[in-house]
Amino acid sequence: MSETLAAYQSPFAGVLAPVITPFTVDLKPDPVRFARHCRWLLANGCSGLAIFGTNSEANSLSVAQKMNLLDALLDAGIDPLRLMPGAGSCSLEDAVRLSGHAVRRGCGGVLILPPFYYKGVSDDGLFAFFEALIARVGDPRLRLYLYHIPAVTAVPIGLELIDRLLDRYPKVICGMKDSSGDWDNTRSAIERFGARGFEVFAGNEDFLLRTMRAGGSGCITATGNINPAAIDALYRNWQAPDAEARQQALTKFRSGLQRNPMIAALKATVAHFSGDAEWSIMHPPLTALDSAQQADLRQHLQASNFTMPGLND
Amino acid sequence: MSETLAAYQSPFAGVLAPVITPFTVDLKPDPVRFARHCRWLLANGCSGLAIFGTNSEANSLSVAQKMNLLDALLDAGIDPLRLMPGAGSCSLEDAVRLSGHAVRRGCGGVLILPPFYYKGVSDDGLFAFFEALIARVGDPRLRLYLYHIPAVTAVPIGLELIDRLLDRYPKVICGMKDSSGDWDNTRSAIERFGARGFEVFAGNEDFLLRTMRAGGSGCITATGNINPAAIDALYRNWQAPDAEARQQALTKFRSGLQRNPMIAALKATVAHFSGDAEWSIMHPPLTALDSAQQADLRQHLQASNFTMPGLND
Repeated sequence: MSETLAAYQSPFAGVLAPVITPFTVDLKPDPVRFARHCRWLLANGCSGLAIFGTNSEANSLSVAQKMNLLDALLDAGIDPLRLMPGAGSCSLEDAVRLSGHAVRRGCGGVLILPPFYYKGVSDDGLFAFFEALIARVGDPRLRLYLYHIPAVTAVPIGLELIDRLLDRYPKVICGMKDSSGDWDNTRSAIERFGARGFEVFAGNEDFLLRTMRAGGSGCITATGNINPAAIDALYRNWQAPDAEARQQALTKFRSGLQRNPMIAALKATVAHFSGDAEWSIMHPPLTALDSAQQADLRQHLQASNFTMPGLND
Repeated sequence: MSETLAAYQSPFAGVLAPVITPFTVDLKPDPVRFARHCRWLLANGCSGLAIFGTNSEANSLSVAQKMNLLDALLDAGIDPLRLMPGAGSCSLEDAVRLSGHAVRRGCGGVLILPPFYYKGVSDDGLFAFFEALIARVGDPRLRLYLYHIPAVTAVPIGLELIDRLLDRYPKVICGMKDSSGDWDNTRSAIERFGARGFEVFAGNEDFLLRTMRAGGSGCITATGNINPAAIDALYRNWQAPDAEARQQALTKFRSGLQRNPMIAALKATVAHFSGDAEWSIMHPPLTALDSAQQADLRQHLQASNFTMPGLND
């Protein structure tokens, strides 16, 4: 299996960050700090940027806000081929509008949530949604990555649905982010679809070594927002003798972060190392860390000798 | 308690239908059939129309599509005071835009889901979302009804949050639709907040008699789309000797409908009695009834001697 897969190189292979979104005090997304953070991520180990993901608080924004942020990144010189914007929505028209914009602006891919309002929907219904989306975008450049995150959506994208979509749209359906936290699912997706060029990204770095050993493409991980170099080092050295030790160190660091709500902890970390307190602002319904949580986070960062050099460059 | 509440008359008191949305074969909402159905509902027992609800497949639409449908209803002569459009969204900007439009067009109220992407969010975070929404709509005419439907959103609007919102916005927070299916919650909401003019609508007619006896305002119910006259008759006669019998008949009729997926069954029923097969079209990710389900539905309608007179007037 590995020989077959090694021949295929995903354009995004490696570590992607679902980029956190900075807000001003009046809850406007701030394109300037956003572009600065994106540049830092690409300079520090990220192979790509999964902007507008769960960690980006992107479902709290409108399509127009996301299109403006995407345009601002491109205006700031970010390579669109490095971008995999989240463009899914409960609303078909919204998903079409944002996906189409991303394709026309040259993005390397789009990451698509299933429509997540209705629960218990059938694979036929989800297939019809993706079918309608792909037809309406109507652009052969569309490269669609499926976003499976059942703990948040409560609408899984199961293996049978992926099989059907790959059969119907082999050139459009490029891969998935598996945020199920279920290694068996990630492994099964790689084993079943890897030979068809389907790129499987683990939903966090805890599974990175296993994903690489199984023939996957890397990970799209929250902590990629602050710790991309170390995660990328494991990605590049997954066959090296110290890979297990690197994995253990990454898992330990992530585990300490997870003592507090992850998205707020990431933003507080960037606020801390950039000296820019506004980075801590969360978009409702999410909330910033309270002072006890902030203290606990700082203790963890100090105990880990963690730094983010060059953040304000 | 009853004396106090009897003095307060909700402008929507009675039976509201979460109006089903007709689509063309290419999934465009059809304003003409939509307006015709709304007129039929108001002529046949509905006190108001909760357009853009769960049963309306409204989260599958964009804000622009919903604004156009709302405008089309008003152009068709529907009284805006009878309308309680669903205007909630995960996206604050989208919720503000649609709510603001509804207020400016004179709608009697708006029905607001909590932001439903993130799960396990705090009351502080939900309060901040409603606070931001109300401030940004910025219109004293805003009459906001809370939409509690935890089986779908997985984000409950609990009684403590309602208490906080009522304290802060006593003139804006007008009531709720309780689709929890948990009678204890509905009863508690009426008991705790009824005296403050908070209007509690049960999420379906199974609870209508109990809701009226407890001092609630009525129900907002899927089956109001096809059976409004009989539900309204119970609403008007809840103190009559035959109220229990009416309730049992309504519950039995609904129970038969629920043998099949409700929204598809409602649309198939309207398609059947209007002779307009396009009414059966569902928006992905929901799907139309298959032929066995259609046959089962027709059997139920026949066994119930059910009709929808005047549907094509």
